[in-house]
Amino acid sequence: MAAALTLARRMARSGVLPLCRQLLAWGRAPRQPPGLPLAQCRAFSNNKIMVELDESSGVATMKFKSPPVNSLSLDFLTEFCISLEKLENNRACRGVIITSAVPKIFSSGLDITEMCGKSTEHYAEFWRAVQEMWLRLYGSNMVTVAAVNGSSPAGGCLIALSCDYRIMVENPKFSIGLNEAQLGIVAPFWFKDTFVNVVGHRVAERSLQLGSLHSAPEAHRLGLVDELVPDEKLQEKTGAVMAQWLALPDHARQLTKSMMRKAVLDRLVAHREEDIQNFISFISKESIQKSLRLYMEMLKKKKG
Amino acid sequence: MAAALTLARRMARSGVLPLCRQLLAWGRAPRQPPGLPLAQCRAFSNNKIMVELDESSGVATMKFKSPPVNSLSLDFLTEFCISLEKLENNRACRGVIITSAVPKIFSSGLDITEMCGKSTEHYAEFWRAVQEMWLRLYGSNMVTVAAVNGSSPAGGCLIALSCDYRIMVENPKFSIGLNEAQLGIVAPFWFKDTFVNVVGHRVAERSLQLGSLHSAPEAHRLGLVDELVPDEKLQEKTGAVMAQWLALPDHARQLTKSMMRKAVLDRLVAHREEDIQNFISFISKESIQKSLRLYMEMLKKKKG
Amino acid sequence: MAAALTLARRMARSGVLPLCRQLLAWGRAPRQPPGLPLAQCRAFSNNKIMVELDESSGVATMKFKSPPVNSLSLDFLTEFCISLEKLENNRACRGVIITSAVPKIFSSGLDITEMCGKSTEHYAEFWRAVQEMWLRLYGSNMVTVAAVNGSSPAGGCLIALSCDYRIMVENPKFSIGLNEAQLGIVAPFWFKDTFVNVVGHRVAERSLQLGSLHSAPEAHRLGLVDELVPDEKLQEKTGAVMAQWLALPDHARQLTKSMMRKAVLDRLVAHREEDIQNFISFISKESIQKSLRLYMEMLKKKKG
Repeated sequence: MAAALTLARRMARSGVLPLCRQLLAWGRAPRQPPGLPLAQCRAFSNNKIMVELDESSGVATMKFKSPPVNSLSLDFLTEFCISLEKLENNRACRGVIITSAVPKIFSSGLDITEMCGKSTEHYAEFWRAVQEMWLRLYGSNMVTVAAVNGSSPAGGCLIALSCDYRIMVENPKFSIGLNEAQLGIVAPFWFKDTFVNVVGHRVAERSLQLGSLHSAPEAHRLGLVDELVPDEKLQEKTGAVMAQWLALPDHARQLTKSMMRKAVLDRLVAHREEDIQNFISFISKESIQKSLRLYMEMLKKKKG
Repeated sequence: MAAALTLARRMARSGVLPLCRQLLAWGRAPRQPPGLPLAQCRAFSNNKIMVELDESSGVATMKFKSPPVNSLSLDFLTEFCISLEKLENNRACRGVIITSAVPKIFSSGLDITEMCGKSTEHYAEFWRAVQEMWLRLYGSNMVTVAAVNGSSPAGGCLIALSCDYRIMVENPKFSIGLNEAQLGIVAPFWFKDTFVNVVGHRVAERSLQLGSLHSAPEAHRLGLVDELVPDEKLQEKTGAVMAQWLALPDHARQLTKSMMRKAVLDRLVAHREEDIQNFISFISKESIQKSLRLYMEMLKKKKG
Repeated sequence: MAAALTLARRMARSGVLPLCRQLLAWGRAPRQPPGLPLAQCRAFSNNKIMVELDESSGVATMKFKSPPVNSLSLDFLTEFCISLEKLENNRACRGVIITSAVPKIFSSGLDITEMCGKSTEHYAEFWRAVQEMWLRLYGSNMVTVAAVNGSSPAGGCLIALSCDYRIMVENPKFSIGLNEAQLGIVAPFWFKDTFVNVVGHRVAERSLQLGSLHSAPEAHRLGLVDELVPDEKLQEKTGAVMAQWLALPDHARQLTKSMMRKAVLDRLVAHREEDIQNFISFISKESIQKSLRLYMEMLKKKKG
């Protein structure tokens, strides 16, 4: 409830309310022929996430287009939550494909600038948005398929892990993993829980401790992604997988999904405020701030 | 306790008390030469489950013979529980092989006619019997080996999953899985817990959401069954596996088994009445009744 | 706290206090050139565990040398705990390699003579030391790598399982596993928890019930060990793995490790006294004492 209010306030402040109205309009959109992008969807292309719903199939696509690396800023996360909620409440939508419009990158994870040199209040707001994103995605009633068409470290990997199914482009240069430890930070317990639910305790323990980024083939071998496909087959394969999942009666599938994920979702809900406080006190440490600053400078030099 | 009483009443009502007396007689049976079917066992062949105990090896065989598909009716479940309890209490019996006498079918799972158009009281009695079957089998002190010589959906799969070891005939036409979601219903949490304990969280989540029936080779690859053998080798292999497990001292093996399974067993025991109420309220829904009726009509047409 | 006191008392009684002083001296040792064994380390070679610290790399080696089979006696366990604590408190030490100086044996596990024909008080003291060993090793802040260069049944396997990474010599004659059930005893719940965290529930259930000792190749296939190497490559490979793990920032790696292992560690801490009482009452049974005596006689005959 508090979270929803914060989110609503955030929506007002961050100027995404117009988007909200667009989304509302879109919910009432007339049927469109399949395959054609919906007119009202094009309106989204000014934002960080392009959302298209094919009402004939009931499948929406959320395409990250926040160059250079689709980092999960507060704005991005807020838009993500609103878009997802809108789709969730739209009876015409039964499944979502999550993918990227930025070449070679699915998402680079949490935006480090949101965690560096900001106020305690800002850290709290940011972290609540990260939690909200995961609670909505991991707990979504819709079928969620990640079409991982680029590298996907940290929070980017979390998004993929939170879907029902993961298809990755078989390019060995693309990597995926919860590499927080490499940056001197620690993946929160619910990142870990989500990871363990996908790859099991041992693979998770080793990969998290080493902050491993796994190449696509290795990620497939470990079960971190379900399938590898050549780039040109990604869309076709994603559609086929989605159709397979949508062949199931929604109600039974949703109750089954909830049964599998409830324990882990409930754990964050029960410890949400505590988790925010932990994040704030960890991220506020001078040593952590320093290593994040160094990391950002390194990134800048790389770009320069 | 309540469950035991219900079961006893059920036994009286359903006419299995004569069987009970047979079983008691059998418990006191004199040693027989190995390999020869025991005279008193032949008496069972009029019932839904044929039970034979080879006292020389301490191994019993429970062979489902309830054509056409060994469906788990209330009568079948009651007989199953009584037979298993009898073996459990027979010091001459240390292991049980569970298999089918019906060609191509291990067990088709819960009998849908028990869940369709019946009274609330009937649903409660039926569900308690399903629970009882699982509690006794999953918690059995005996070594339990499933010799899966046919297809084994839903409740049939649960029986296999509840054993200590699963050997399946390598016929790719035989399939196994918890396919409840395909029928628009949801596998209960203790089906899920049993499944997760065998194949892990990820495989279970995907398979349960899709209501997958896995071919024998796929089931083997996923770890759902431990071993595949040609039909003609099934008996020999099952015997060899049983001998391997019986080579261990009973006491240590039983305590170890209990340690591995206690948490999951306790969970149903703690929520048993709640689980019955959930089942009743779910199965009583008109939408569920309707989809079960449709399913049964489809089955009838198939047969016709 | 109580445990620490017991340990301290034990140290005094068992004459390991001189070792303690050596350890204290060693903590203040001046830097040594890398690769050269430290002078103060050689002093350890009279004890059951040879400890060497290469301060340049921050890597210590604990080499079991308690012939004939590195069995985990009370003395051995006490020395193990003290050595490990000393390294843990030494800021120059970041990682520990655990291996054996006895050919063909890593460790044969708990010393059966400590569990046979002794007083209740002795059983309590012994069991507390076994717990202490595991709590310290499984919960160590250091990177721990097991270089398993010989067979490793029961408690020996537990030591390997408690490390962060396991490399085993690929000799198929070397075996590893929690084979307690073969001896008629039961692995305690925290052995089981540790095992499940490495190989998953199903592999653990089957392996524990059968008391399996797995050959090196099989152990690798099951995930019980992470890697196999030829004997002559063991040292090189172990060093390379250790370097890989030490490349991570300690703080983030330690917090991550703790997050993965805390639930299982806490469970023993919460039930420690109960677990001791369980051990005492189990091991004091005449039937168990008898089977342990038989086992020891068998071992003696083998040697003779």
